[in-house]
Amino acid sequence: MADAPTLLLERLVKQRVTLLLKDARQLTGTLVALDEHMNLVLDDADETTAEMTRHLGKVVLRGSNVVTLHAPQAAAKSA
Amino acid sequence: MADAPTLLLERLVKQRVTLLLKDARQLTGTLVALDEHMNLVLDDADETTAEMTRHLGKVVLRGSNVVTLHAPQAAAKSA
Amino acid sequence: MADAPTLLLERLVKQRVTLLLKDARQLTGTLVALDEHMNLVLDDADETTAEMTRHLGKVVLRGSNVVTLHAPQAAAKSA
Amino acid sequence: MADAPTLLLERLVKQRVTLLLKDARQLTGTLVALDEHMNLVLDDADETTAEMTRHLGKVVLRGSNVVTLHAPQAAAKSA
Amino acid sequence: MADAPTLLLERLVKQRVTLLLKDARQLTGTLVALDEHMNLVLDDADETTAEMTRHLGKVVLRGSNVVTLHAPQAAAKSA
Amino acid sequence: MADAPTLLLERLVKQRVTLLLKDARQLTGTLVALDEHMNLVLDDADETTAEMTRHLGKVVLRGSNVVTLHAPQAAAKSA
Amino acid sequence: MADAPTLLLERLVKQRVTLLLKDARQLTGTLVALDEHMNLVLDDADETTAEMTRHLGKVVLRGSNVVTLHAPQAAAKSA
Repeated sequence: MADAPTLLLERLVKQRVTLLLKDARQLTGTLVALDEHMNLVLDDADETTAEMTRHLGKVVLRGSNVVTLHAPQAAAKSA
Repeated sequence: MADAPTLLLERLVKQRVTLLLKDARQLTGTLVALDEHMNLVLDDADETTAEMTRHLGKVVLRGSNVVTLHAPQAAAKSA
Repeated sequence: MADAPTLLLERLVKQRVTLLLKDARQLTGTLVALDEHMNLVLDDADETTAEMTRHLGKVVLRGSNVVTLHAPQAAAKSA
Repeated sequence: MADAPTLLLERLVKQRVTLLLKDARQLTGTLVALDEHMNLVLDDADETTAEMTRHLGKVVLRGSNVVTLHAPQAAAKSA
Repeated sequence: MADAPTLLLERLVKQRVTLLLKDARQLTGTLVALDEHMNLVLDDADETTAEMTRHLGKVVLRGSNVVTLHAPQAAAKSA
Repeated sequence: MADAPTLLLERLVKQRVTLLLKDARQLTGTLVALDEHMNLVLDDADETTAEMTRHLGKVVLRGSNVVTLHAPQAAAKSA
Repeated sequence: MADAPTLLLERLVKQRVTLLLKDARQLTGTLVALDEHMNLVLDDADETTAEMTRHLGKVVLRGSNVVTLHAPQAAAKSA
């Protein structure tokens, strides 16, 4: 069987990732923590909406708000 | 009894699949991981909305956002 | 006590069923798999919306999106 | 203590019941199965919306879509 | 510690209660059954919306649709 | 470790609290009961919406509808 | 493995944090309690919406309403 999604997520720790949330906001930051609910902690995070970008710093995110997470650099390696 | 949906999903690993999400976005990529919540990981993924298509690379998807997953090639084989 | 809904669902395996989803889409296909969350797999499935019908082939459906499932032929037998 | 709702529901098996769903559709049919999640199976069911009524036959309903179920005949007996 | 909400609910059995639902409908009836999910059964129930009132008789209500339940008579006693 | 939120809630029993609900209604009353799902019972409660205030008496509230609870007097003491 | 999000949250106790809620309200206060559902208690909290800011005092927040929590000072330290 293939690796589970949360195992793959753990390999992304310390990398820059981009999250799309259910309310259409986008967060980009360094992944520093996660759990099995996909609760996530980002360091040095920026929030982008249709109107603006702002720096948030350390952000704790409740997993139920996450739609997708992608990691451009990881993709380059696996492609 | 018939096979369970997650067993059938595992057979789709390494195949191209198309996901429809609750927010109406569509993702197409190679299925590389999944778990019992239908959390999924796609490699080499493209996102398509009504307005545009963009390349995302590796994508982790929270299962609660998935509506349907279909695999055109698997369908051809089983039909 | 009457049979449980999931037992009745299993008897519909290999029959054509029609699903109504929360986003108002309708799917018709041959039921090939299901589990206790009402995750379902359809073969040879067609999707119908207010605007169009398209062929999807094999479809995996997350149970939380299902509103109703009906089976015209099963109804004829039980009526 | 009073009887639990699911026990009262079981006594409605084989009776005609009317369901109101979260999407405002109404279903009327003979209750043939239920479980503890309020997943329900109706036989000989009709669906009514603001625009139309149509016959669906046997219907499996995911409990999370149910708002209320009422049984006019049972009410007459208990009133 | 104070009594739990479900214990207080059980004391309301056989009293007239008014429920406000998430879809803004209001139901008034005699509470006859309840469980720990706040699934409820009302006898001799009336439904009131912005447009109309109608008699439903016995009603089974899925707890997840309940916002509040109040009991005017119980309030008078405890005030 | 700090005290858990439910422990802090129990200390608010017998105090006047104000609840903001997901449907934007506001309830003010004396907290008389609560459980681990944040199901709550208020005595002598008033409901306030954008249009009006009305007296409800004893109210049982399903926790899933609560956004925030605040207690002006408790705040004054802890500040 | 990295620390879990709830462990990182506990280190923020006694610090000023800013919460964004699903209904777009923003709360700023001193974090005094939390649990594994991300239920939170803030002291000396202010609520900010598009229209106004008001002082709420002590606030108990149901975790399911939280989108993100950020702590400007913690971010400065970890950056």
